[in-house]
Amino acid sequence: MKRKAVVLLSGGLDSAVTLFFARSSGYDCSALAVDYGQRHRVELESAAKIAGAAGASLKVMKLGIDWGGSSLLDKNSRIPLGRSANRIRRGGIPSTYVPGRNTVFLSVAASFAEAIGAGDIFIGAHTEDSSGYPDCRPGYLKAFGEVIRSGTKAGLEGRLRLRSPLVGLDKSGIIKLGHRLGVPFKDTWSCYSGGRAPCGKCDSCVLRAKGFAGAGLADPSLGKTKKAQGYA
Amino acid sequence: MKRKAVVLLSGGLDSAVTLFFARSSGYDCSALAVDYGQRHRVELESAAKIAGAAGASLKVMKLGIDWGGSSLLDKNSRIPLGRSANRIRRGGIPSTYVPGRNTVFLSVAASFAEAIGAGDIFIGAHTEDSSGYPDCRPGYLKAFGEVIRSGTKAGLEGRLRLRSPLVGLDKSGIIKLGHRLGVPFKDTWSCYSGGRAPCGKCDSCVLRAKGFAGAGLADPSLGKTKKAQGYA
Repeated sequence: MKRKAVVLLSGGLDSAVTLFFARSSGYDCSALAVDYGQRHRVELESAAKIAGAAGASLKVMKLGIDWGGSSLLDKNSRIPLGRSANRIRRGGIPSTYVPGRNTVFLSVAASFAEAIGAGDIFIGAHTEDSSGYPDCRPGYLKAFGEVIRSGTKAGLEGRLRLRSPLVGLDKSGIIKLGHRLGVPFKDTWSCYSGGRAPCGKCDSCVLRAKGFAGAGLADPSLGKTKKAQGYA
Repeated sequence: MKRKAVVLLSGGLDSAVTLFFARSSGYDCSALAVDYGQRHRVELESAAKIAGAAGASLKVMKLGIDWGGSSLLDKNSRIPLGRSANRIRRGGIPSTYVPGRNTVFLSVAASFAEAIGAGDIFIGAHTEDSSGYPDCRPGYLKAFGEVIRSGTKAGLEGRLRLRSPLVGLDKSGIIKLGHRLGVPFKDTWSCYSGGRAPCGKCDSCVLRAKGFAGAGLADPSLGKTKKAQGYA
């Protein structure tokens, strides 16, 4: 019998690669997506497609985070455009930072994993994001691993651990890995702006374009619309 | 201006004492309760009364934890009766243990605290519960403190910390403290069984009765119904 894993799946590129990585490592994967009122809820449709392509079950958990604190939640706030300007504006942490987001996601994943008897939790946090979001950094992930080890029954018994296989990779490295694993990039969603086509200008779109360029690959999600074509 | 704090409030005795403790320490308190499908949802009514008595705002967050894994969530499962039998049955961890519950609650509290600019998060975890629930133990609370310090913007900037003032107290000590602080014990709810009156037999009812007896105080929540009268 295959070992069970819970994989946090946002519908974005990183979590899709993580899911395919876990599958290729021989896990029976349960993907977990969170509907937390993100303006780019279209990513949840991507999550469904990606889980389907990976042969994983998908659970979408609704979470009433309605206290704002992030441009990613507030439809009246502007998503910052361009990566560097954005970083400077917020002293290194983008305004799209959602307070405690990965902590909430990992907590829910730990609860879910323990309830279904999964032994591993996978998250697609990585180096390039971690320069902006504190809850993607290796030190943070280590601290959360300790929360799982000390604060869950399964963790105390050595049956539950946290894995972040992308943590040392940059976007190009992640895209190359995903390419080898057959990730359907066309179905992944990165844009933060909340439209039906990628804006090509937000932090996440810019990083994605840079990643594909660095990997020497074309982004198959482009060319869907006129607007998107201008974005690579 | 008073410093802001987020206080996790279940409607039970421990979190009520914690809220009154935070208030007496001079904080402007925002209480946070979580509706996670617990069978004893009546505790949320208690949370509203207690927050009102403490002059705190109350936010109830709905959380779709529907994956079970605990007798506290599953209406078809039996809540274990009597403290010791229960502990033996599950190798030291009661079946009422909800996978990762405090981790989920603390995550949500950290996100909420950061969004509203609170500098402290209070949780009523303590020694006697920690003998049964891993996510009440001091080592766990320390690990979660590190998650807040490393994984939130406010934590990184030294503006957010976790406090568990009851951690070294037993139930009698907590009740004595609450008595001094004027906690309206009659409005607190401890029973896990999901009825409209305390069952007097579940783990939580037994521990409460023992605590009042040890403190040499009468439990003002008793005597409401005939059934409850038999429970001290």
